[in-house]
Amino acid sequence: MNPSSQQTEPKRRGRRAGGEDTKAALLAAAREVFVERGYEGSTVRSIAARAGVDAAMVNHWFGGKEKLFAQAVLQVPIDPNALVVTLLDGPDDEIGERIVRTFLGVWDPIGGGQFSAMVRSVTAHDRVAEVLRDFFVRTVLHRIIAHLDVPDAELRATLLASQIFGMGMIRYVVRFEPLASADVDTLVKAIAPNLQRYLTGDIG
Amino acid sequence: MNPSSQQTEPKRRGRRAGGEDTKAALLAAAREVFVERGYEGSTVRSIAARAGVDAAMVNHWFGGKEKLFAQAVLQVPIDPNALVVTLLDGPDDEIGERIVRTFLGVWDPIGGGQFSAMVRSVTAHDRVAEVLRDFFVRTVLHRIIAHLDVPDAELRATLLASQIFGMGMIRYVVRFEPLASADVDTLVKAIAPNLQRYLTGDIG
Repeated sequence: MNPSSQQTEPKRRGRRAGGEDTKAALLAAAREVFVERGYEGSTVRSIAARAGVDAAMVNHWFGGKEKLFAQAVLQVPIDPNALVVTLLDGPDDEIGERIVRTFLGVWDPIGGGQFSAMVRSVTAHDRVAEVLRDFFVRTVLHRIIAHLDVPDAELRATLLASQIFGMGMIRYVVRFEPLASADVDTLVKAIAPNLQRYLTGDIG
Repeated sequence: MNPSSQQTEPKRRGRRAGGEDTKAALLAAAREVFVERGYEGSTVRSIAARAGVDAAMVNHWFGGKEKLFAQAVLQVPIDPNALVVTLLDGPDDEIGERIVRTFLGVWDPIGGGQFSAMVRSVTAHDRVAEVLRDFFVRTVLHRIIAHLDVPDAELRATLLASQIFGMGMIRYVVRFEPLASADVDTLVKAIAPNLQRYLTGDIG
């Protein structure tokens, strides 16, 4: 969606010719600032300043810090906040299924290239791994875990992450068949019960 | 272990000064040849020829093609054949536990750097992903699956791979706590039942 009709002017008029330039400058600045300062330590204001545009441009183009992070670092056009709301909306004993469906719903249409790019940048730069951890733990995992109210919440969250990350690696990066081409329902049946056990079952 | 007392002469005498040079030349040649021709398509003879040494040097220094692959591409000093024998040696309903213990037993002492390096090379080069898949499926997964005699064997094998790969990513690369520092018994209790379900349980 290109909200060009509501576009306001960037601070340094003339430096960025159009909206797409502003957006690209914000993405590049966001990658730098998030990696330098971590997710919590990065402000919308500091990212906008790095890009040489007004802070209002972040909300205008990305709808806030979480979504800017998702696009700049995760490289997916998602709203992490909406994602968590979706995951938690329904019976607790079906959360494993909702997680598998949601993850595949985000990544399958994009294909493997961007998942590989994210993994590559995580393995190449320790700071990217840190900022990803910082973001993921605070923004996604803590909220899922707080909702479920289970013991050993942090361990459960990282176990969940291990299976989801591994599914992405095998499906999009290493592409082992038949998992790489399996349909969503097959993967839900196979993987969701394991996620469910990690989140609400006996793991100790 | 440096078996220098039994060392035979390389073919191109004088080109490789000592045994360590021969070994390094074979590792470099193996990486090239495996990536060019795949695991099955690469012969010990062709790798030795690329390195400019006698084919007997492969057995002398690495004990065969599988172990050379493990060192050159996986970057771990393991014998994949012995590994599979270990995994299959015991009750079938404890194979999940043996897999977690064996994987952590190989990678924990080496630390995260080499796992990251492997993941980096897999994400950077499609051919590395292919050769890893080729090796892993033929050498490890098929043998585990043939031993267990279960339906949907290939899907089970890739599900197993997804959890193991994901555990490695979270423990060694992204390092989400508490999984990254959890002791082996904690991870066995948490993860082994999920692997066991993938291998011998109801997944459909």
